[in-house]
Amino acid sequence: MKLLRYGPAGHEKPGVLLDGKRYDVAAFGEDYNEQFFATNGPARLAAFVQAQAGELPVLPDDERLGPPVARPSKIVCVGLNYSDHADEMGLGYPAEPVFFLKATSALAGPNDDIIIPRGSEKTDWEVELAVVIGCRASYVTEADALDYVAGYVLHHDVSERAFQLERGGTWDKGKGCDTFAPLGPWLVTPDEIADPANLRLWLTVNGQPKQDSNTAKLIFGLPFLISYVSQFMTLLPGDVLSTGTPAGVGIGLKPPQYLNPGDIVEMGIDGLGSARQVLRAYSPA
Amino acid sequence: MKLLRYGPAGHEKPGVLLDGKRYDVAAFGEDYNEQFFATNGPARLAAFVQAQAGELPVLPDDERLGPPVARPSKIVCVGLNYSDHADEMGLGYPAEPVFFLKATSALAGPNDDIIIPRGSEKTDWEVELAVVIGCRASYVTEADALDYVAGYVLHHDVSERAFQLERGGTWDKGKGCDTFAPLGPWLVTPDEIADPANLRLWLTVNGQPKQDSNTAKLIFGLPFLISYVSQFMTLLPGDVLSTGTPAGVGIGLKPPQYLNPGDIVEMGIDGLGSARQVLRAYSPA
Repeated sequence: MKLLRYGPAGHEKPGVLLDGKRYDVAAFGEDYNEQFFATNGPARLAAFVQAQAGELPVLPDDERLGPPVARPSKIVCVGLNYSDHADEMGLGYPAEPVFFLKATSALAGPNDDIIIPRGSEKTDWEVELAVVIGCRASYVTEADALDYVAGYVLHHDVSERAFQLERGGTWDKGKGCDTFAPLGPWLVTPDEIADPANLRLWLTVNGQPKQDSNTAKLIFGLPFLISYVSQFMTLLPGDVLSTGTPAGVGIGLKPPQYLNPGDIVEMGIDGLGSARQVLRAYSPA
Repeated sequence: MKLLRYGPAGHEKPGVLLDGKRYDVAAFGEDYNEQFFATNGPARLAAFVQAQAGELPVLPDDERLGPPVARPSKIVCVGLNYSDHADEMGLGYPAEPVFFLKATSALAGPNDDIIIPRGSEKTDWEVELAVVIGCRASYVTEADALDYVAGYVLHHDVSERAFQLERGGTWDKGKGCDTFAPLGPWLVTPDEIADPANLRLWLTVNGQPKQDSNTAKLIFGLPFLISYVSQFMTLLPGDVLSTGTPAGVGIGLKPPQYLNPGDIVEMGIDGLGSARQVLRAYSPA
């Protein structure tokens, strides 16, 4: 099953994608939030969809998509987790996973504009495989870790490199800007992903290929990451864990290249669909 | 007005403190969450309390207190923001504020046990003044910043120093462990705090004084901090911004001193009440 959320930002309603068509499941009566995932929501939703087969309202293809999860308690992102990306950053391979928190106020729909913050000159791209957590995960073993996954989702971990690396303190400054976490188009349940450790992921800027890799190149695999993060903090239902980006980001190019207003970034992951974002300069609402 | 939340963890109900007595305002029908703050909740609650004067149910003093805000979108913490603390850490004074995100799953009541995570040998204390944001704050000026404050609250920014500083990556690993953000006892509205830049704050461990300072010693004051953070990300109603800790933390002592099971930490801030936490080793539920 593929879960999506549609409608104006902040007022999204739930939907599903079935055989390539979008359907409205607002009548299910629940948003895809912590409570939904904590109460076996995906299975209940699947039963609802089956019972309503042929009667669900179809959504137009041009309806805005929001992030497919509603207000997760946190977004945990792993850094330097592809060997090719660690090489290009010149930072060596980490002895254990590097992770940080991305402000959930950065969440955006998969095709929303990315706003370049005031004063930014180094807004950069990072295509990533993310998972949404299905149930409370604390001190989880690597062997059990995939049981905690509600689904897989395409994530763009947009990063302002000067804010991240040159402004003192932690990476969080350059990771949590508004619109810096486009998520989706849909959350894909695990039954539809044969092997999350073998998914191609790619990203282009203005049509030029920038990133093209495979989750087979993760330094720390998904089960290890879930287990690892859960030693430090409880992952709650609906939380997002993003697994890191492969080589080809702007800061790794010689010379470095960053995003400007009007640039178009497109990206995708096998089985998880694709997304397209236009860059826009900040202007007061 | 002083806002509190009482009852079992995860099922707290709203209350208020009036003339030192706790009253139940569950009949007000709202929790102190993003929606509450976004819709002028404190003023509406004050009107409710005034209308119900003399008829509000009294709460027993031994009722558990929860954190006085419900599921903020984020907790932003400032580091190295007291001159005496920057000195003891030997890290110099930052040129601009250092901040990081603390997982909201770390939130706890002001008198709940602090759980020492598995494998922790360096769990440390940090008493802090925090503010709760009252309305969306994006690119706020320093002059306007205090208009965005819904209230002030005592925060214990518990920190695992090995996780924070010795495990690679950002500080977030050592700041977001479960129970590492005791908050409260109450949220105090700005009308009750004459000068947030002149509040004594203190902390003891097993009755021994460890921290005793004043918010007058903040390197970056509260208006500057709110303005600064809002240049990087939007602060949402109900979000918590914690202003940093003064000298006297365990890692700064010679030799360093950390917390062990059974230790008792007590702390307070002028006008914001006090809190008391017992340390406990992690054990599976």
